[in-house]
Amino acid sequence: MDHSIAGRLTQTGHELLVRVYFEDTDFSGVVYHARYLQFLERGRSDFLRLKGIGHRELLDGAFGAPMAFAVRRMEIEFLRPARIDDILRVETRTALLGGARVVLDQRILRGEADVLVEARVKVAVISPAGKPMRMPPAVLATLAPEEASVAGA
Amino acid sequence: MDHSIAGRLTQTGHELLVRVYFEDTDFSGVVYHARYLQFLERGRSDFLRLKGIGHRELLDGAFGAPMAFAVRRMEIEFLRPARIDDILRVETRTALLGGARVVLDQRILRGEADVLVEARVKVAVISPAGKPMRMPPAVLATLAPEEASVAGA
Amino acid sequence: MDHSIAGRLTQTGHELLVRVYFEDTDFSGVVYHARYLQFLERGRSDFLRLKGIGHRELLDGAFGAPMAFAVRRMEIEFLRPARIDDILRVETRTALLGGARVVLDQRILRGEADVLVEARVKVAVISPAGKPMRMPPAVLATLAPEEASVAGA
Amino acid sequence: MDHSIAGRLTQTGHELLVRVYFEDTDFSGVVYHARYLQFLERGRSDFLRLKGIGHRELLDGAFGAPMAFAVRRMEIEFLRPARIDDILRVETRTALLGGARVVLDQRILRGEADVLVEARVKVAVISPAGKPMRMPPAVLATLAPEEASVAGA
Repeated sequence: MDHSIAGRLTQTGHELLVRVYFEDTDFSGVVYHARYLQFLERGRSDFLRLKGIGHRELLDGAFGAPMAFAVRRMEIEFLRPARIDDILRVETRTALLGGARVVLDQRILRGEADVLVEARVKVAVISPAGKPMRMPPAVLATLAPEEASVAGA
Repeated sequence: MDHSIAGRLTQTGHELLVRVYFEDTDFSGVVYHARYLQFLERGRSDFLRLKGIGHRELLDGAFGAPMAFAVRRMEIEFLRPARIDDILRVETRTALLGGARVVLDQRILRGEADVLVEARVKVAVISPAGKPMRMPPAVLATLAPEEASVAGA
Repeated sequence: MDHSIAGRLTQTGHELLVRVYFEDTDFSGVVYHARYLQFLERGRSDFLRLKGIGHRELLDGAFGAPMAFAVRRMEIEFLRPARIDDILRVETRTALLGGARVVLDQRILRGEADVLVEARVKVAVISPAGKPMRMPPAVLATLAPEEASVAGA
Repeated sequence: MDHSIAGRLTQTGHELLVRVYFEDTDFSGVVYHARYLQFLERGRSDFLRLKGIGHRELLDGAFGAPMAFAVRRMEIEFLRPARIDDILRVETRTALLGGARVVLDQRILRGEADVLVEARVKVAVISPAGKPMRMPPAVLATLAPEEASVAGA
């Protein structure tokens, strides 16, 4: 299966394929629940990457002051387990965009219609010292899809 | 700081001390968000352990049919970051107990009053094939604190 | 960068591209040393996969008795650090093949010539109970490149 | 089992108890091989900690210039598997001490005599930019046990 290593932008956001390896499973035979958060984070990172925003550049101050994304809140449903050797698809789209945080809706699927995980993730931008910051315009513009509700944070 | 490696039972549930090591941090300088889920899982496991319930025994069928705990849903707030070398306290208590699932309230603190993470976690019991099962009486009795609301699932 | 999600077979073995994400780094700013072992394991798994051998099939007994690969010994040099957002190339080739174990030479590179990690990995096949087993003929044939020394284990 | 959360100094070095949790296992039913490197790193960190050297202080320049420990080379034998719920003992002692690196011998045991993992680990001190540095006198003095061979690096 050929694909771009950073996934691809879609009409509604982004999708990324990830493989389940030994490292992702636990002794119950399926994927360890906290690993799905890593798959989701890969999706978010590659969504930003394809829009021109890298974590290293963010921390080096390429978008104003040095900053990093931090997850503030997550609601996550673990619906069905993934297994070793599975190829999963991580879907990411902006649900709500404010000046100081963005809410993303993410799903992990196997095949076309088998939804394994659903998550709503609130992400903020912080300084290296951990202080909340306003998102720089370039980041705001990147995360604003046509269909997202844009509102004050 | 001396403590039991499995933490200790408290009036309301359980608490466990965990150390933050290199492995838990990321390049932004603080603990990687998904690692808190592992700290929470350690707390849940040791809570059960001190009540006499081990994961290996569960999977080997010591409590009836072979079974394992699986996280079904989690709401988690990441309030403040933990840093390398920190000692954290994971608190676990039963919020709601049903026949097929339990809801636990968990917090991660640094020191007495610095709450870093708050989580509400819904856990179910599944067969090795991933099928939901009713919790065996020994597990139900273990997880039922006096103050928990006991209700049908 | 388009590539196959399972990497590709080369004249001497296999190569796989992997991305460095947040989860792979630590607070010193670079990739955490143990994560390279996971990258190496992904390379070995996808080498086997492209030769028709999956971990689930192995454990389900598709190649004789149920079995799994286990790392027995590793020598690993950490030469230079990888950083967030890097794309790395994991190279795998068979160095020595015996009836009960295989020795693989693996490298992790950034770009064409920047070798970050070199490893020699001894892998054996074990039963689910952890007992060493002889490798089934299909696995032996898969791992035997023309240039490998084939000798009794 | 009561113990200090940072383990304890012994006649020959240091020992630390670690618990095996869900997060440490993989679908083959035992501990994932790369996790032992994390257990070893916890042992090294707590050995230094009990001698008065913290990773945060090192990086903040409390021992001269800002610096961090980095693993340069590892030879590791995976002799027997650990399982969920096991309590393991990580032993660390200095084997060889030079001006720019230290070689540590480490073992992971279950019970008194069941050696699961043996490792020889070469560690160096680097600047935040990754440049090798000479170890500060306080670190050298800390790592020099009576029985270690002290030689130029």
